Amino acid sequence: MSELLDRINGPNDIKNIATEDYPKLAREIRHFLIRQISRTGGHLASNLGVVELTMALHLTMNFPEDKLIWDVGHQSYTHKLLTGRKDEFDTLRQYEGMSGFPKRRESDCDAFDTGHSSTSISAACGLVKARELTGGTYKVAAVIGDGALSGGMAYEALNNAARLKSNLIIVLNDNNMSIAPNVGGMANYLGKIRTNSKYMNLKDGLEKTLTRIPLAGGRIVSRLKQSKDSIKHLMIQGMLFEEMGITYIGPIDGHDVEQVIMALETASRANKAVLVHVITKKGKGYGKAEKDPCRFHGVDPFSVRTGETIKPAEGISYTQVFSDKMVQLGAKDERVVAITAAMPLGCGLTDFEKHYPKRFFDVGIAEEHAVTFAAGLAVGGMRPVVAVYSSFLQRAYDQILHDVCTGHLPVIFAVDRAGIVGNDGETHQGIFDISYLSHMPGMVLMAPKNKAELEAMLDFALELDCPVAIRYPRGSCYLGLPEHQEPLSLNRSELIVKEKDILLLAVGSMVETAVAVRELLARQGLSSSLVNVRFPNAVDEELLRSLAETHSLLVTMEENVKRGGYGMQIDTFLVESGMMLRHLNLSLPDDFLEQGDPKVLKKQVGLDAESIARTIGTWFPDGREGR
Amino acid sequence: MSELLDRINGPNDIKNIATEDYPKLAREIRHFLIRQISRTGGHLASNLGVVELTMALHLTMNFPEDKLIWDVGHQSYTHKLLTGRKDEFDTLRQYEGMSGFPKRRESDCDAFDTGHSSTSISAACGLVKARELTGGTYKVAAVIGDGALSGGMAYEALNNAARLKSNLIIVLNDNNMSIAPNVGGMANYLGKIRTNSKYMNLKDGLEKTLTRIPLAGGRIVSRLKQSKDSIKHLMIQGMLFEEMGITYIGPIDGHDVEQVIMALETASRANKAVLVHVITKKGKGYGKAEKDPCRFHGVDPFSVRTGETIKPAEGISYTQVFSDKMVQLGAKDERVVAITAAMPLGCGLTDFEKHYPKRFFDVGIAEEHAVTFAAGLAVGGMRPVVAVYSSFLQRAYDQILHDVCTGHLPVIFAVDRAGIVGNDGETHQGIFDISYLSHMPGMVLMAPKNKAELEAMLDFALELDCPVAIRYPRGSCYLGLPEHQEPLSLNRSELIVKEKDILLLAVGSMVETAVAVRELLARQGLSSSLVNVRFPNAVDEELLRSLAETHSLLVTMEENVKRGGYGMQIDTFLVESGMMLRHLNLSLPDDFLEQGDPKVLKKQVGLDAESIARTIGTWFPDGREGR
Repeated sequence: MSELLDRINGPNDIKNIATEDYPKLAREIRHFLIRQISRTGGHLASNLGVVELTMALHLTMNFPEDKLIWDVGHQSYTHKLLTGRKDEFDTLRQYEGMSGFPKRRESDCDAFDTGHSSTSISAACGLVKARELTGGTYKVAAVIGDGALSGGMAYEALNNAARLKSNLIIVLNDNNMSIAPNVGGMANYLGKIRTNSKYMNLKDGLEKTLTRIPLAGGRIVSRLKQSKDSIKHLMIQGMLFEEMGITYIGPIDGHDVEQVIMALETASRANKAVLVHVITKKGKGYGKAEKDPCRFHGVDPFSVRTGETIKPAEGISYTQVFSDKMVQLGAKDERVVAITAAMPLGCGLTDFEKHYPKRFFDVGIAEEHAVTFAAGLAVGGMRPVVAVYSSFLQRAYDQILHDVCTGHLPVIFAVDRAGIVGNDGETHQGIFDISYLSHMPGMVLMAPKNKAELEAMLDFALELDCPVAIRYPRGSCYLGLPEHQEPLSLNRSELIVKEKDILLLAVGSMVETAVAVRELLARQGLSSSLVNVRFPNAVDEELLRSLAETHSLLVTMEENVKRGGYGMQIDTFLVESGMMLRHLNLSLPDDFLEQGDPKVLKKQVGLDAESIARTIGTWFPDGREGR
Repeated sequence: MSELLDRINGPNDIKNIATEDYPKLAREIRHFLIRQISRTGGHLASNLGVVELTMALHLTMNFPEDKLIWDVGHQSYTHKLLTGRKDEFDTLRQYEGMSGFPKRRESDCDAFDTGHSSTSISAACGLVKARELTGGTYKVAAVIGDGALSGGMAYEALNNAARLKSNLIIVLNDNNMSIAPNVGGMANYLGKIRTNSKYMNLKDGLEKTLTRIPLAGGRIVSRLKQSKDSIKHLMIQGMLFEEMGITYIGPIDGHDVEQVIMALETASRANKAVLVHVITKKGKGYGKAEKDPCRFHGVDPFSVRTGETIKPAEGISYTQVFSDKMVQLGAKDERVVAITAAMPLGCGLTDFEKHYPKRFFDVGIAEEHAVTFAAGLAVGGMRPVVAVYSSFLQRAYDQILHDVCTGHLPVIFAVDRAGIVGNDGETHQGIFDISYLSHMPGMVLMAPKNKAELEAMLDFALELDCPVAIRYPRGSCYLGLPEHQEPLSLNRSELIVKEKDILLLAVGSMVETAVAVRELLARQGLSSSLVNVRFPNAVDEELLRSLAETHSLLVTMEENVKRGGYGMQIDTFLVESGMMLRHLNLSLPDDFLEQGDPKVLKKQVGLDAESIARTIGTWFPDGREGR
């Protein structure tokens, strides 16, 4: 099945494949991707959509000399396949394995690391200018989806790309989807192009196209020709880009390798930025993914035959708990509105949308707008809930600080995927949010220990009249400690077990771990108390003072980098209060955290129960008596 | 001179002015603004440009019911004047005085707080949706400059505004400038509209305009009419907005009150977002400001007759030192390129541009693009220096973390206006950068004590091969301690005076203050040592250990909020090392810092030398013997 693919073992090998074999090669690649991703999990639909596009790029570019930047980057699997990384697919997205995103350290064919959306054109502009200044001759191309095009920085980049005096190829990979279907003026505009026009046949050349316009003939044409702009308006799709100063070519059938090659070659001849508008189908070649590209965006291992996930997630996820609670809150309070940046499913808002379509807003991949839009809603008397992944909320740092916090506006941030996220790696770990939210004046920050507490925190957030962020992890929700439901009180922690000697201060997800740690410590003959921090940007001084006499070691536990985290606030409290307690700060190293199963990663950084118990044990070399 | 203005003492009073008196009122307002700003300082050119536009908005809206949002907000002086704040202009931008920006707490006629660029349309979309959901009938309008339109979040907002089903008025205040002349595809596009077209005369009505198109008559028109889109293309300017789904009206002469009123009234009738393109002249009515709007953007008190600043700044500014050094570095290293986001003058890059035009990039108000563009340049082998104000760099938090730091790319951030900035208030103080940069993995953060050290730090940054940020304050550069020029060593502090008892650890600008503090302490009989921290996201453990025996109190001093600042790292060091030193953390309160003269503000928060010496004194109630 893979006789052609077997011949591709390094960059540029694809050029040895005969033109007539391109469709066969595309089939082999798809077969390979489906088989591999069904085993390892990964991004499926987006990769199946760009097989021919990637082939065309590789047939017109030389690697590693030429620079190809994949926006977001989860669609770079075929690129990896064509640059000699076929054998590494078995380790895709696993600890120390091949990344699911472009990584410069993984291959010199990966020109720029990506992960978040809408960065590619900016980086490409930089490479173009570097090429000009260093006298280089390499090609630079950015591949950006129509979803990523709703991100503001893509527009900032287009605005600057229009000024380039040497070639830049921007491939607009238009599949009418981000993770969810796209929304907004730009999406409608692209939709019109898709609907109104046939694919451009570049073989016929531009001149021929010229003569085929409906108004051709006689005085009218000559009259029209006097105004170049007007002619363009009548003829050429993509005027929006042309108006901005970017040459537009398209739309092109993204599954016709030869057409795409021709478009790319045409584009590469201009001494300016050229946008090649390529229409592709997400999930192409795998029926189930074509039908439901949202579900097959990112997948766990699945059965190719049935499309079903092999090991369905156990238990209810925090996202689902949030989802259910939002439906409840929507009923209880008409002011509650919900906002997502292109991730209604991932963030748990599809049910809210079904119940309250008028109070649900998907703004596209546009976190900045999402937050300030929420600020506007709050000023208008609503109670907005912005649901977003921790690492993507980074994009709106200034908007949270400048538009929500300066006005002390009651916007609730539901920060999903906080902490160790796993296989997506560095760019997707939610390990900075305590640090970047903690210093925002007036921000109330919470982290629930379990299902009931996430629900209670959402209720509590609605009672407050200020900015609130609730951070909760990816994956299954902790159902333990159901009997501990002390009502929430602002910036107060919850004492769960009161013993002595060791005081475990656990933030959110780490409470579950701390319960296990306590058992392990008990086996070592060590006694410990457990506090559920609840508000990781506040120190519950009263509680700590009340426990100071009976404890000698504080152990803070959080899924966040150390700097700016909860543990450092405890240090400040210890110094300022003059308390003579020792402090063991168990947080993440001040570094990016690579990809891998969260369990593996936790072990690696010493945040699993066994490692923690062992570390604490070293502070008490003689067991209890060590005190 | 102000007989008409005297009759305006509260919101909506302008409606009592006769139509024929509008030009006279505009003159009176300009006269008032020039007189007042010449006394207090403030934003001049932008305010003179929008006098008639503001009048027209106030003549078509009711305050406080209707919601008017000023993007950036420094152009809201006439709005303040027309809403009963005339008498407060004497305290403009002063401590506890009237803000230079819209403030909801100052007046219910200020619908939304602004300060940073490109937020207005997002907030306005929120208010429109809130109006729909609450059954309100108020008008919502956003006024955004063509400069602010280069910011990505404005585009995200337009993309979403296109979907609105009820009225939103977006006034594009096009003066062909941000602080500096605008750049990029959008600016060119607007330039074409300005150049190619006469002002729209709305009196004649849209139908009349229709019949005046050159192609009118006979078969041709009927043919054209079949395609509504094509007609639009031929007739209407602003197709870029129309393509996105925003109705476009314009261009309109922004200094003709009645024309603007008519455009606003037409716009308010549509059940969707309408963009009214208004052409204004920055500095209008004051010759010197018309001629040099950059210089008259934000001014200190000046002579109206000569245009000269009354009290020119003393000494050389850090910005100027940076500027001179950049010219030097450009000569020494061809890889050095400089990037600004629309502030070449403010950030000190005009000289670099003159010397190395090809290595200078003004990307418009687009901090996000600026940073990722720099990342691309770095990957391409250049050594980019991004010069930006501390508070504006917040906009690019994710890009620094995700595009520069994950790749460990050698981008240098020249963070100007770090610390207390002064009269622009909350939104412009640079008091969060240590907190938001410190937790970014691999970021080297520096703060110079004086002129020579800023120069040395720029040299040093170029020697490093990683992300670097250098933060330095607004205003005059410290020239003291010229004899202290210990070569920079990564993450090592500089010991300036070694005595005993009190150890002053001063970050950047606070070294100058610390020198004064030492003298005051000496007068109290207290001995102190002084350390220039240099790297505020690192603790020089070796130095601290070497000084621990002879000192009992550490005093950290920084112009940054406490959370996430240098002082908290010292706390962590103290706890982890088990050192028994006391720590006095002198930083800014964890809150926004209001406007005012920096000296007044420092006194207010206890960061001036006298307050600090007094505070330290309270730790030694009996003088030296108190130890």
